[in-house]
Formats: sequence, structure tokens, C-alpha cells
Amino acid sequence: MDPGDLRTLLENVRAGSVSPEDAARRLATLPYEDLGFAKVDHHRALRQGFPEAIFGAGKTPEQIVAIVERISAHGQRVLVTRTDEAVHRLVVESQPDACYLEAARCITVEARPPAPLPGRIAIAAAGTSDLPVAEEAAVTATFYGAEVDRVYDVGVAGLHRLLDRAGTIREADVVIVVAGMEGALPSVVAGLVDTPVIAVPTSVGYGASFHGLAALLAMLNSCASGVGVVNIDNGFGAGYLGCLILRGRRPAAD
Amino acid sequence: MDPGDLRTLLENVRAGSVSPEDAARRLATLPYEDLGFAKVDHHRALRQGFPEAIFGAGKTPEQIVAIVERISAHGQRVLVTRTDEAVHRLVVESQPDACYLEAARCITVEARPPAPLPGRIAIAAAGTSDLPVAEEAAVTATFYGAEVDRVYDVGVAGLHRLLDRAGTIREADVVIVVAGMEGALPSVVAGLVDTPVIAVPTSVGYGASFHGLAALLAMLNSCASGVGVVNIDNGFGAGYLGCLILRGRRPAAD
Amino acid sequence: MDPGDLRTLLENVRAGSVSPEDAARRLATLPYEDLGFAKVDHHRALRQGFPEAIFGAGKTPEQIVAIVERISAHGQRVLVTRTDEAVHRLVVESQPDACYLEAARCITVEARPPAPLPGRIAIAAAGTSDLPVAEEAAVTATFYGAEVDRVYDVGVAGLHRLLDRAGTIREADVVIVVAGMEGALPSVVAGLVDTPVIAVPTSVGYGASFHGLAALLAMLNSCASGVGVVNIDNGFGAGYLGCLILRGRRPAAD
Amino acid sequence: MDPGDLRTLLENVRAGSVSPEDAARRLATLPYEDLGFAKVDHHRALRQGFPEAIFGAGKTPEQIVAIVERISAHGQRVLVTRTDEAVHRLVVESQPDACYLEAARCITVEARPPAPLPGRIAIAAAGTSDLPVAEEAAVTATFYGAEVDRVYDVGVAGLHRLLDRAGTIREADVVIVVAGMEGALPSVVAGLVDTPVIAVPTSVGYGASFHGLAALLAMLNSCASGVGVVNIDNGFGAGYLGCLILRGRRPAAD
Amino acid sequence: MDPGDLRTLLENVRAGSVSPEDAARRLATLPYEDLGFAKVDHHRALRQGFPEAIFGAGKTPEQIVAIVERISAHGQRVLVTRTDEAVHRLVVESQPDACYLEAARCITVEARPPAPLPGRIAIAAAGTSDLPVAEEAAVTATFYGAEVDRVYDVGVAGLHRLLDRAGTIREADVVIVVAGMEGALPSVVAGLVDTPVIAVPTSVGYGASFHGLAALLAMLNSCASGVGVVNIDNGFGAGYLGCLILRGRRPAAD
Amino acid sequence: MDPGDLRTLLENVRAGSVSPEDAARRLATLPYEDLGFAKVDHHRALRQGFPEAIFGAGKTPEQIVAIVERISAHGQRVLVTRTDEAVHRLVVESQPDACYLEAARCITVEARPPAPLPGRIAIAAAGTSDLPVAEEAAVTATFYGAEVDRVYDVGVAGLHRLLDRAGTIREADVVIVVAGMEGALPSVVAGLVDTPVIAVPTSVGYGASFHGLAALLAMLNSCASGVGVVNIDNGFGAGYLGCLILRGRRPAAD
Amino acid sequence: MDPGDLRTLLENVRAGSVSPEDAARRLATLPYEDLGFAKVDHHRALRQGFPEAIFGAGKTPEQIVAIVERISAHGQRVLVTRTDEAVHRLVVESQPDACYLEAARCITVEARPPAPLPGRIAIAAAGTSDLPVAEEAAVTATFYGAEVDRVYDVGVAGLHRLLDRAGTIREADVVIVVAGMEGALPSVVAGLVDTPVIAVPTSVGYGASFHGLAALLAMLNSCASGVGVVNIDNGFGAGYLGCLILRGRRPAAD
Amino acid sequence: MDPGDLRTLLENVRAGSVSPEDAARRLATLPYEDLGFAKVDHHRALRQGFPEAIFGAGKTPEQIVAIVERISAHGQRVLVTRTDEAVHRLVVESQPDACYLEAARCITVEARPPAPLPGRIAIAAAGTSDLPVAEEAAVTATFYGAEVDRVYDVGVAGLHRLLDRAGTIREADVVIVVAGMEGALPSVVAGLVDTPVIAVPTSVGYGASFHGLAALLAMLNSCASGVGVVNIDNGFGAGYLGCLILRGRRPAAD
Repeated sequence: MDPGDLRTLLENVRAGSVSPEDAARRLATLPYEDLGFAKVDHHRALRQGFPEAIFGAGKTPEQIVAIVERISAHGQRVLVTRTDEAVHRLVVESQPDACYLEAARCITVEARPPAPLPGRIAIAAAGTSDLPVAEEAAVTATFYGAEVDRVYDVGVAGLHRLLDRAGTIREADVVIVVAGMEGALPSVVAGLVDTPVIAVPTSVGYGASFHGLAALLAMLNSCASGVGVVNIDNGFGAGYLGCLILRGRRPAAD
Repeated sequence: MDPGDLRTLLENVRAGSVSPEDAARRLATLPYEDLGFAKVDHHRALRQGFPEAIFGAGKTPEQIVAIVERISAHGQRVLVTRTDEAVHRLVVESQPDACYLEAARCITVEARPPAPLPGRIAIAAAGTSDLPVAEEAAVTATFYGAEVDRVYDVGVAGLHRLLDRAGTIREADVVIVVAGMEGALPSVVAGLVDTPVIAVPTSVGYGASFHGLAALLAMLNSCASGVGVVNIDNGFGAGYLGCLILRGRRPAAD
Repeated sequence: MDPGDLRTLLENVRAGSVSPEDAARRLATLPYEDLGFAKVDHHRALRQGFPEAIFGAGKTPEQIVAIVERISAHGQRVLVTRTDEAVHRLVVESQPDACYLEAARCITVEARPPAPLPGRIAIAAAGTSDLPVAEEAAVTATFYGAEVDRVYDVGVAGLHRLLDRAGTIREADVVIVVAGMEGALPSVVAGLVDTPVIAVPTSVGYGASFHGLAALLAMLNSCASGVGVVNIDNGFGAGYLGCLILRGRRPAAD
Repeated sequence: MDPGDLRTLLENVRAGSVSPEDAARRLATLPYEDLGFAKVDHHRALRQGFPEAIFGAGKTPEQIVAIVERISAHGQRVLVTRTDEAVHRLVVESQPDACYLEAARCITVEARPPAPLPGRIAIAAAGTSDLPVAEEAAVTATFYGAEVDRVYDVGVAGLHRLLDRAGTIREADVVIVVAGMEGALPSVVAGLVDTPVIAVPTSVGYGASFHGLAALLAMLNSCASGVGVVNIDNGFGAGYLGCLILRGRRPAAD
Repeated sequence: MDPGDLRTLLENVRAGSVSPEDAARRLATLPYEDLGFAKVDHHRALRQGFPEAIFGAGKTPEQIVAIVERISAHGQRVLVTRTDEAVHRLVVESQPDACYLEAARCITVEARPPAPLPGRIAIAAAGTSDLPVAEEAAVTATFYGAEVDRVYDVGVAGLHRLLDRAGTIREADVVIVVAGMEGALPSVVAGLVDTPVIAVPTSVGYGASFHGLAALLAMLNSCASGVGVVNIDNGFGAGYLGCLILRGRRPAAD
Repeated sequence: MDPGDLRTLLENVRAGSVSPEDAARRLATLPYEDLGFAKVDHHRALRQGFPEAIFGAGKTPEQIVAIVERISAHGQRVLVTRTDEAVHRLVVESQPDACYLEAARCITVEARPPAPLPGRIAIAAAGTSDLPVAEEAAVTATFYGAEVDRVYDVGVAGLHRLLDRAGTIREADVVIVVAGMEGALPSVVAGLVDTPVIAVPTSVGYGASFHGLAALLAMLNSCASGVGVVNIDNGFGAGYLGCLILRGRRPAAD
Repeated sequence: MDPGDLRTLLENVRAGSVSPEDAARRLATLPYEDLGFAKVDHHRALRQGFPEAIFGAGKTPEQIVAIVERISAHGQRVLVTRTDEAVHRLVVESQPDACYLEAARCITVEARPPAPLPGRIAIAAAGTSDLPVAEEAAVTATFYGAEVDRVYDVGVAGLHRLLDRAGTIREADVVIVVAGMEGALPSVVAGLVDTPVIAVPTSVGYGASFHGLAALLAMLNSCASGVGVVNIDNGFGAGYLGCLILRGRRPAAD
Repeated sequence: MDPGDLRTLLENVRAGSVSPEDAARRLATLPYEDLGFAKVDHHRALRQGFPEAIFGAGKTPEQIVAIVERISAHGQRVLVTRTDEAVHRLVVESQPDACYLEAARCITVEARPPAPLPGRIAIAAAGTSDLPVAEEAAVTATFYGAEVDRVYDVGVAGLHRLLDRAGTIREADVVIVVAGMEGALPSVVAGLVDTPVIAVPTSVGYGASFHGLAALLAMLNSCASGVGVVNIDNGFGAGYLGCLILRGRRPAAD
């Protein structure tokens, strides 16, 4: 809580427009709602400006449905990641306009379209097996209002495929680069552009890829500057960070 | 190389304004200069818009001096990271206005001030021992034109110190968070702000910190969204990425 | 065996009240019972003051039932951890009052309530997926006689949720903190309280969490003092240690 | 900050005994002091009840002296860990009663003796090379007011040495167990006692000890219940945690 | 091949008792038999004095049956490890006296009893879950002719159980110690005996046991001398090595 | 793209034989075909001289069938690795002469035999369980035109089996050595031959083999010179590299 | 303590030949001597039959001298490992017949020759850099009474050197095999002999040898049976274990 | 030893032209020479066709001088790697024409030039700090007779530098690629050429490069086929393997 906000509240207390009890309650009972197994943070859309997302893995279908319903009931848009079609079938019973995006393994419930963000995000992926993660990033970025360009199957062993799409990549304001195995693509892309690059290692590979560790280490050690790395397979995180960067560009924020 | 640029060049070849030999040379001899042990990339300031930086560790003082001189000779500003006072004494012989920034272990040679970037970068550091890395980020960001706010010694075990400075952190357009040991600070900060967070793990710690591995893993696994991670102790990388993000905000870029 | 106990026994031998044969037998045949595949330690309730617990994972249902029966036959209370409903159905055949606590994956057979321990244990958990481990700790602590306060879904990325419950946490005599992913919660909590903190990393997470390694390392490297760490997912161990600490408070122990 | 404290403060604001400006300042400027490179937390002795400790490694002698002076100036007792005799010679210039405890590599400045804690802490160490860590724990525990019993050189390969001292270990209210190499001692000790065991792995060993990793993993996997583990070589942390546990025993706390 | 053997063979060639062709064949066609997917080494019983053992994991039932038949056809005794009852049902069709030892997951086909080895092997196991590995060691040792004493469920957290059986352990000529989790038992046992100790880490445990790594490292770092370690879960290897040590004791070998 | 090729193209542009538009298109649209989920690189057979191979793991049967059809439609030969019989049944519907090579888990579709490569490749494998990887290497090498000699079940613990086949190994121009567990075979083989050795670690083993890590590290640390290592279980990569080496020998390449 | 010994002692107590006080003292004060920083275990020569060895690394010269003097004063022979010539110069002042064995970095003080053990130990080492560890094993084995044959520089990449010495290796009763880098030698040697093999990985190597980890893992995964592994660089442990094995051969033990 | 060779020898024994004693001696005493600390393998130049190289690290200057002298005395050329100028000053006393190649840290003693190998080796290096390893490879390849083209400072973040030199790389018969940090260069290069690529990870980097592990893993997981990897910093191994590949091209070998 900001000292500034605090001071205002305290002024109101002295002025009598807010009682001490009310002030204390206001400070204490921030607007979230307790479902028992989870606290739904309705405050988040206000605080961070972006609606809530639900990480589906490790939650029961019933838990997901309950959280989705509660968020939707407040009129917010919802994104569920790491989920599947069976969950969607359950969700759609109460949220008829819920969509299942198979390639991204995501569900979205969108009462209205997102406020568009300025600029574009290019999402480059090295191989076919990296697509689920790339699509999770793409769906996330779209959900939060970004325009997305997909540049897929442009692994570094076939530079001509990548260079052929360099124009699209260079025109973006943020580039998300998704790669497994040796994870070299972010270094090559970051050398081609003058914009922030978000690197997403994937668990694609076998043997000494150690479930994405090889790609992760490669990306952290990139010889190119301007690369920020997220967790292995974390397409959502990359899309979200990309949108935060784009949002900084909007006139209203200045 | 962009198909667009290529087409223009080829048109010029057909139009006769560029000879095939010239075109081939232009394509082949991109503007860098070979010092034998290194290729100085004068093209970089054009291509990426940011002047060259030299990673000092693992280079001899003589190599650093030679690269600095060559870049300066082209009128570009220079930043040397991971260096020391002895190297500065050598550099200053030919570049009298070279500065040594001890806390950051950096040398700068700045013929002129940088073009100012829009917005501010807050740099939060968890402990006293994290300062060299935080200062490397701060000097880098300043070198590339950002306004920097330092918020130091705000480790998560003393939340009041951090919350006391939350206003400064929230007013920034990008937050760089530097922490060693358990690396928890980026998660807490990312929960407080609605801007991109760049997390820098440091090698500060002992025992099971494994030279920064604990902090690195913690930051990659942050439960807060909107965090991009750079290599252990990579203050330069964080400062550079922060400036790339800020630059996207300037009107000229749209 | 204590020199003190030994001396008493030897005095009795000299006094004739105990024969050498008896003494040797007494020293050798400590009160445990051999089931072939396991030695049930009836002596434990005497020696450590706490009844026996059975780690269910890796034991067959038949083995668990046999051990439970043998312990119950001696009138002791029993706790089975890492088990499931199928095992409970078997156990309940011979122990009709056996309870299955689903959220904690535990079975308890309690002939009588535990002797109450002085003080309270607060159990804080970072996310919904950490609940099974948190509940294992809670059930364990309750089984051994502690009063337990649950403070769930208070991850560090939403500090307001945590601070809102800070009163409950501070009123406890021992705090158990359960977290996966970046494992930052124990550091933040330990900075808020002046009591012992028991940190339990969980295997919740993916990618670079490496099945709980990231959280474990973070907790071991906590910048806050007063934190003891147990194995990944070891809710039982945390609850047990918490009760040992509480027990030290009882007048009888002084 | 507790809701309770907040309400009182707000009542005072309404009552006029505290002005809004004062209240805001009070909330914002918690009592720490900024030395530039570090924030000295005078509030700590109030908040946690224990005086400040300084982790000496990675701080310059000048920094340590400055922090020590500032804390002493407020009449608090000071403990510096991971330091050496050279620093002591500097400290003693301004703090003539500063002591250097060589075996523990610690400096203490104690204007007055600590408030005694109820109960005793036994510190068991496996080998001669583990003594610096054991002594750091012992000096820390003594500094915070505990009675300490040292039980050294009782590695598990010579059980008779350990069992010979079992009486001392069993009489303690908390046992700190320090061991490198295979780190087996905490498991054996925890099987002998009915009190909390704090396990400290040390970096003693070579080859596959991997600088204490072997001992750390062993302690986390202890088959004995009631063991909390701290970082490798973290004698201070063990001593501090031990004192927190003891303090819970004092009548004033009930 | 020994220079000595070679010289004898060459003498026979010169003497005419062996033709050059025969000698070359003899040197080249050492007595093994090629099944296509495996070379059965009939020479082994001669060369090492111990009959063949088959590691069942990763082989198809058909491959195991084929190898067993081929070895049995040469009148040798056979041991199959890491197998199951289904394979036994197949084997028994052609080898009616094949036994399945469930606790050890082994099949034996023994045309005749083994030549007894001098001395005894004690096999100590820490917990119930370690029994399959301990039994694999026991069955192996028995198969190769050793007398075996089983000392099970004697983990270090209950020293009295272990000390109660110390007599049996001390009377053995070789001790095999099987333990998972923290792997402390070999260190304690090696301190009690004056005979070789073979330590077998098991994958029993969870979390930071990392599938037996914790136990393995602990055993390699044992503070007790006289301990040789085999691979995680390698009960066969321990039993075999134990028998090689025993065999050195028989008069015939001297 | 070579400066030489580029110059020729540019000359043609000036000469009028190629229009700028055509040149740009030629440079941009290199011959690959976009299937949406993958870009089929028809150019590869031209560029690298070897037909396309498909890594089957992680692709759906439908994806594999589509890629196979597209490549076959261009008259190229196809190799699918890491696949199974079910995929083969699908492929054979449209490619009636597709073969399934069970031991290697590969499918080949060969409109015509490969151009034979000069020289031979020997493939040595340590154990029965290494055969699938060895066969993947053998099938790959055969597919690309090499003569292959298989030398299986020659692990270093039975040197006579290996030395018996040393003639075959020495006669090869390239030796591929496949081994799991301790991965010692490449060192021994490289000491016997004067040709390049390609080492393939396999994931065969258990416990401290850590899924092939032990074998991989051993091969990278080989005390014998002349060994290049590929990823764990990467039989395809070894066969492909072997063929690249052989191809360097053909007169046509000089 | 054996039940048998205990019974005898108790009988003596009843018979009056031992007073209860004496018996208790006897049980408690086992014969070791406390130097403050270490407990010298004079009982060891009795209990294990082998005199004391001192691990020199991590002890001060003064500590080593003190322990050596105390042991010598009881007439026992002494071995100091991991030491250097400077320590020897100190030791020799009070123990004039102390020898420094440079290649093994050991000091021995031998009042009299050891009791000879039956049989021989062959020590095979792979490379020149492995000699310090091999010599530590050789000096240890000699110190405890074994006959030692050295077979050095017989790495697996030059099989002829090894096979040339195979006779010596086969004639030994125990073989100690010392190797760094890929650690393959124990597997090859174990395939040649029918005796126990003790494998000692060394830290010789660079890069992916990870300070001996590669060799350690290779030895643990040996495809040859009959191998026990000790810690990296643990020549002493191997020599000691070898002597325990030999001692089992002595007629008195049968 | 080949069966073929053996048969010939045996025929000679029968024919009387070779006595059994001579044959045995010939088989046993292969031509190496024992210096005590090392066996110099004069046979190597015959057996593998390439002269001896000495790994200097971990050998004393005196050992290196002795081995160099012995090899030179047999008229062979010598290469010493991982050495320094001080050793060179010693070597040059007895070998006046010994050269020290500083950039490669190598000494060569070349009585005569090498037999030239057919073809060329291109050595590509990513950064300035990788040069010592690249030069070790270059000096090694030159020493064994290859023509070498150096393509340095062509890291993937500046693709234009690399593509500018693609012609040179493509004209080589073997490409050695040296890179630290993220180790991406081999993947990119292997996609550009149709020849074998030997990848050499270097320990250049910091933080999460873990002394070359990141680069090593990246190279092993290369998405490009045709890459063989050697140990971290193993420039010698790469140069040697490159020459073995080239040698296969010589007419004499066919």
C-alpha cells in the first residue's frame, strides 16, 4: 500500500468522512473472495489491469469450474491454461460461450473482447513439437489484447526458413521465442532485432536435454543482449510479460 | 536481411545506380572491423540503435584498450563492464574523459550524453552484497539513456523496508530486481506492480545457494506473472533489456 | 541407554532383585515386536512420548493393516500417512472407528483424544496445489495434540492476502510454512514473526522447479533467520517437529 | 503490521492525540537507519526480541565497523559472524570490549549479558573439522542467552563415543547436530531424544561430498522424525533457531 | 590371456601336438555361443568360477527363456534377477525345477546345490521398503554358495534394534548393508565390525532422496573405513562381491 | 548463401536474364513447403545431398503420414525414426512399399536404393539392451548408402568377445560404438583403431546411470583420442554423421 | 557391545569380582582420550585390529603432531594421509623415525613392522596423474601389512599395456583399480579376474569430468560384477578395505 | 591383435623361422618404454599412424621434459598441449627447435614437417575468449598435417559476420566449431554445410554456464544432424578427430 493512498485515507478519517472502523476494515478486507481451496482475487483486474488466469494443471475439474464461475460472475474475462477438452465440457455447462483452444490447451471465457494493446507480438517457434507452448503464448497474448504474428518451424539448423521470416519478426514490438533441444533460436533472433526478446525454453528433446534444462541454460547464457527468460514450457508467462511490455506503450500510461 | 531491403538494392542494381560488384560488396562487407582477436561491430549502433558494450572479464587490458579506442574513433560512446581500476588507468591514457564507476566495476567513455529514453527504471536490490550487480544494471541503464531509481537493501525478510519504498517502485515503467540467496524479491515485487519485472539472480550466498543456482531457480519459478530472468550476476543484461523496453515507448518508434 | 539407567539396573543386580540373566534379557529384548517385514516399536510411545505413525507409501495394504492392528492391540493411537481410501476400507474392517482424511491422504485410529499440547501451530500454504501437504501437516499436528490454525492461499505474489492474515500467524507459537514453486513464503513469514518457522517445500511446480528442488534450495537459503527445513512434501515431518517444539512448553517437561 | 496495532493508531488519529501526518510518518518511517550500503534495523530488537547479527562474509572491514558502531550506539548488543581477527582489531578501536572468539570466527560486543533463556541446548558435532560451524552455533546460542553443552567428536562410526554422551544430549531441550561427510549423526541423535533436533550439514569432506551436498541430502532424508535442517555451514542459523525454540518456553511468553 | 598360457600353447604348436590352425581357432573361438541378441558365455563358469546370472530387466520373456535354456543345457546353474512371476511361468515350462523367489524378484534353476563357500554373510537392511533389494542380495549370495544371516528393519533412528542384533552382524565374515533415505546404516555398521562392509543404496525415499542419490552420496562419504559401495538398488552386485570375498578364504584357492 | 552464388545471381539481374522480382523471390522462397505444423524442406536433398528423415517421437501418426506423403510425392526416399508398428500400418496405406524395421523402430520408404557410399561402418554395441539404438544407427547408415557391419554384445567386461571381433572393427572406415551403463566401450575401441569413432551413450542402466548420464560423461572424458559423442540414445545422429564422414571419401566429392 | 560380553560382565558383578560402580565406569569410559579438539580412539587397535590413521587435510600441523604423539605414546603405529613435507618436518622433531612418502603424500611412524597379511594386493592405475591416489592406496595397504604389486599407466585406450600385465593382476587376491577421466579401467579389470575389485575414481580430468563425477558414475555402473567403489580420490579407503578383505584369509580367522 | 596376424606368426613358429620364445616375447613386449611414472608408447606412431601428444596439465615440467626427450630420441615429432612458456624454456634446452605457440598454449618439436593430409579443416569460433581452445585445435590439426582455415568471432548474435564467412566454412572438408556460453554456433553451422561438424564446448561464460555445461548440453542436443561433440575445452581432441576424418580421404587408405 502506498504512503500516498494511506495519507488520503487518514485525512478522511480525521475529516470524519471515514470512521476508524471503516478505515481499518477497508485496509484489512481487500476485495478477494475465499472459496475455501482458493482465494479469488477480484482486486487483480483493478490492481494489475489484466483479468485473472487459472493454471489448470493440478486442479480438479470441479475446482476449475468453481473458480471460472466466480470470476465470470463478476463480469471478468477468464483464461484457463494447461487444461483439456474434458474440463471444457464441464465449464461450458455454466459458461456456454467458453471456447476450447486445442493447440494451446486453453479455455477462454470472454464476455467481451479485450481492450486492444498497442503494437504487435511476434511468436517464433523452432520446431513442430514446440507448438503447444507457442500457442499457449499466442492465446495468452491475444486474450490480453495483443496482435500476434506466428512464425513457426524456424529452427536454427535451417537458417533460410528463419531469415525468410525476418521481416515479420523485425516488425514486431516484442518477440517471444520458443525452442527446445539446444535452445539456440533466441540468441539468433535477438541478434536480428532491436526489441525485447522473451525466451521460452521447452521440454522438447530427449537424453541430454534433461526435460528442457539444456534449452533453459542456453537461453540464460545467450551471447545476445536483450533477452529475458521464463520457466520451461511457460508459454503463459511469456505472453503475459509481452503484454505488460506492450501496455507500457499506450498513451494513457504516459 | 529483409526481403524489402533486398528488393530495393536489386532495383538499384537494375536501374544502374548500384553496380553488381558494389551490391555484392555491400551485402558481404557489413560494417565491422577486424582487430584480429575481435570483430568490432560499428554496424551495431545503426542496427540496434544502442552503442557497443564490452564484457571485460576474460579479455586482457590491452585487448580492452584496443577495442575502446577503435569504437571511440568512430565517435561512438563505450561501456566496459566487469573491469577494474587498473584497466581504467590504461584506458584513460588515450581516452582522458573515461570514467571508472567503482561500485559497478564499469568504465564509460561518453563523448556526449545519451539520447534520453522515456520513462524510469527502478532497481531494487535485496542485500548489501547484491550492490555490485545492481550498480552494473544501474550504470548500464543510465549509459543507454534511462532515468534510474535505486531501491536498495529491501530483502523480503524485512517487508516494512520494501513496502516503505513501494511508491518509488510502482512509479517506474520497468523494475529490475536483484537478489541472491533465496531469490524471493522478484516474486514479491511483481505482485506489487503492473509493469515488466526483470529478475537478476546473484551469486551472493553460500552452501546450498550453489553460486546463485538457488536464486536463479526461484526466479524462474516465480508464482507472480510478468517476470523475465537473466543470467546470474548479469546486471548489464538486465539494464540493457530494461532500456529496450523503455525505448518501445518513445513516440519516434511508432 | 543412559549411564544413569544402567547404574540403577546394575545396583539391582548386585542387590539380587534382578538376576544377571534378567538384566541381560532386559537390555537385549527392548519392547518391539517382529512382524517379519517390520519391527513394531511399542517402546516408542514410552521413549518419545508420541504414538507411532506409519508411512503408507511403498507398503502393501495388507502390511499397513497388519501394523495398524498390532499397534491398536496395544491400545495406542495410530496415524497412517500417504495412503488412500482403498486402504481405509480395509483398515476399517478391523478398526471400525478409523477415519480417512481425504485432503491429507491420512488415516487415523484414535481410541481416545490426544493429550493436548500447550500453544498453537499456524500452517500457512502458498497455493491451492500445496494443500495436500499442508493438510498432512495439519492432521499430524492435530493427531499429536496441537491446536492448528490454517492460513491457506497466501502466496507472496499477493502480499495483501498474507498481511491480512498476519495476526493469526503472529499469534501462533510455531509456524509451518508450505510452498512449492519459488518457495519464497517462509522467508517472508519468518520476517513477520518471532517464533520458530518450519519450512516445507512441495513438489508443486513444473519445468525448472525440478520436482521441488527450487523451493527446497530457496528455503535453505532463506535470508530470514529462524527457519528449519524438512524434506520436499514432508508435511508429516513438519507437523511432528512442530509438536516436539510445543511439547517443550508444557510444565511437566520442566 | 497487525490490524490490531493499526486500529489503535487510527483511534488515536480520530481522538486527535496523533495527527494524520504523524500517523502516516509513523507508519512509513519504521525505525531503521540508512548507512547508504545497508539499512540498520534498530526495530529488530523490538520486533523479534533478539539483537542484530551481522553476516561478515562479503562485507568490507569498514562496512562491518560502521554497522557495529551504529548498533552499539543504540545500546544494543552485537554479534558478527564469519569474520576474522583483522576485523576484530579494527572494531576494538571504537568498541574496546569487543571479543574475538577464534574457534567460532565471531566477534561479540556485549554491553551487558543477555537475558537468560530457559532450558539448555546441546551441540553435537561429528568430527574435528566440523568444530568451526559447531562453535558458530554455540557462540550464537550463548549470545542470545542459552546455556550450551558441547558434545564434540561423536561421529557415528564410533557409536560408543556418542552413547557415552547420550545423557548430556538427552537432558537438553533442543539439540543442534553438526556433521559433514555422510551427515548421519542427526538421524542417530534424533532416534535417541524426544526433543527438536536442528541439523547443520557442513562442507567438510571431499570428492562426492560435493561441498556439503551429501550431508545436506542425508539430513533432509532422515528416517528419524523431528529434524529441521538449515543451510550448509549455517551454525548461526541453527543457534538462532534453537534460541527461538527455547524462548517459547519462558513463562512471560505464556 | 596370460603370457604363461600363451607360451604353453606355442610350445605345443612347435611340438606338433597342436596344429597352427587349431591354435588360432582356440585363441579366437573362446567358448561362448551367439544367440543373435546375446552371446552366452559358457566360459564364464570356468574363468570366474561362478555360474552365469541374467539381468532380467529390459529383456523380453522370450529372450530370458532362451538364455536360461541354453545355459541349463550346458548343465550350469542359472540365476535371473529383476524378473517376475509371469517370466517364471514361461521358464518353468522347459525347466520344471525353476524356482521363483518373490521377495527377491528372482528365478533360480539349480540342477544341484552350489559348492558351499567358507564363512557367513550378514545382510542388514534399514527399512521394510528396502527388503526387495536386500532379498536380491540374499538370494544371490545363497545361489553362489554363501550362508546368509538376515538382519532386517534396523534403521539408525532406532539404535536399540540394531545393537540388539550386533552379535549376528559381528559374527559374519562380510556384511552387506542395504539402506535408502539418508543411507546412514553402513557408517554405523562399519564402526561396529572389523570385516568388509558392502553398502547398497536403495531408491527408497521421496523428495530430496532423488531416487537414491542421497543414500548413494552418504555411503560414498562414510566416515567409517572399510566400506565399498555398489550401484543404487544393486542387490545382486553386493551379493556377488560378497561371495568373491568369501571365496578368497577357501583353502582350495590358496 | 555464398557470396559467389549471390554474385552470379546479381550478374544475371544486370544482364537482364533474371528480373529483380524473380531474384528476390528466388532468394526468399527457398524450396520448402508449409504443412501448417511443419515446413517440409525439399531443398534438403539438394543442399545436404541426403534425403529427409523424420523424428517420429512427439508427432501424431497423422502428422507423420502427412509429412511422409509430401516427401514421397517429390520422389525422395524417406526415413522415420522413433516410431512403431501402428504408424507403419497407417503409412503403408498410401506408401505400399514402406518397410517397418522393428529392431530399430524405424520406417523406410525407398523408391529406389541409395547411392552407395565408399567404405564401411562398423557398429559395435556393448549389451543386448543397447540393440535398439545400435539398430537405429545401422538402419540410418544403410538408408544413406553405407555398408554396415554389426558387432554386438561385446561389452568391456568380456574383452575376449571384443578382441575376437577386432578384425571387423579395424577394417571399417568409421566405427560407431553404442553403450549404456558405464559407457567404457568407445575408449577401448578407439584405442584399437586408427579411424574416427562415433560414441553413442544409451539410457540403458539403472540407479546411478541417471538415464544415460553416466555413459555420456564417460564418453566425453574418453582417454582415447579420436572420439566424437552424440546425444543419449541418438542412433540416428551417429549413423548420419558416419555417412557424412564416408561421403568425404568419394571421388565425386573431390 | 555384544550381549555376550555384557553377560560376562554382569556375571562378574554378581560374583562380586566387579563392583557395580566399576562395571558402569567400564561400560561408560571406553578407552579413548580426549584432546579437546579430538577423541583419540586407543580402543580401535583392539576393536578393529588395525592401528589408527589420521586424515591430515583440514587439520592444523599442530593438531596432527599432537594426535601422532598421543598415539605413538601408546606404542601404536601411525599413518597420516593427505599431508605434506612441512608437517613431516614438525612430526619428526618428536618422532625421529617418522617417514614422509612424497608420492603418496603420507607420513608413517612405525615402531615395528606390521603383522603381515596373507595374500597380495595389485594396484592398477590408468594414468600418470592418478599416481598420488594409487600411491596413497599402496602406502596404506603396506602400512596394514599387505604385499603390494603396482601396475601403473595401463589405461584402457592402450589395451596391450594392460594385457601385458594381466598376469600380475590375476595373481593378486584383491585388485584396487584407480582411474580418472572416463573411469573405465575397473570394468575391464573386473572382467579379467575372479577376485574382488575395489574401484577408486580420481578427480583427474577436466571439463565434463566434473572433478571425478564422471569416473565415479562409470564405476558404480560397471557392467562387470564384483566391483565395490569408494569415494573420489579415496586411496586410503581402498587400501584399508583391501586389507580387511585379505585379513579374512588368515588362518586364525578360520 | 588380429586373428590374421596371429595366424601368420603361428605359421612362422611352425616353419621354424620364429622360435616360440621369440613369438611369446613379440606378443608380450609391445614397443613401449617405461619411464616409471609413464609408459611412452613408441608403438603408437605405427599403430595409429599419428605421433604422440602429451597432455601437459597435471604433469610436472620435469616429467614433460623427460617424455619429450624420449619421444624425440626415437625421431618422432611431439606435441605438448595445456602447457606454458616456463615449460618451453626447459624443453628448449635439450630440443633447440621446440616452438611455443602462445595463443594455443602448446609446444611442438618437429624434426620434419608432417605428411600432408588431403582436404581442409575450417575452425569457427564464437567469441574472443574462445580463441585459446580454437587455437589448440588449429595447432593440433596443423601438427598432424591438415590445412586449417580460421573463422573467428562469428557468434550467432551477429549472423552477418558468420554468413559473410560461410564460403570459407563450406569449402572445408571438416568443420570444427568452438563456442562457450549458449553453444549455439555448431547448430547454425551444421545447417549450412554438408560435411562433418566437430563441436567443442568451452568453459567461457559465467553464472548459469556452469563452466561449460550449458554449451555442452546445447551441442549434444543440436537440432542439426551431423555433429559430434568432444569434452569441454578439448581443442586437441577436436583437431585430432578432424585429422582422422581427413586421413580417411587419402588414396593410400583406399
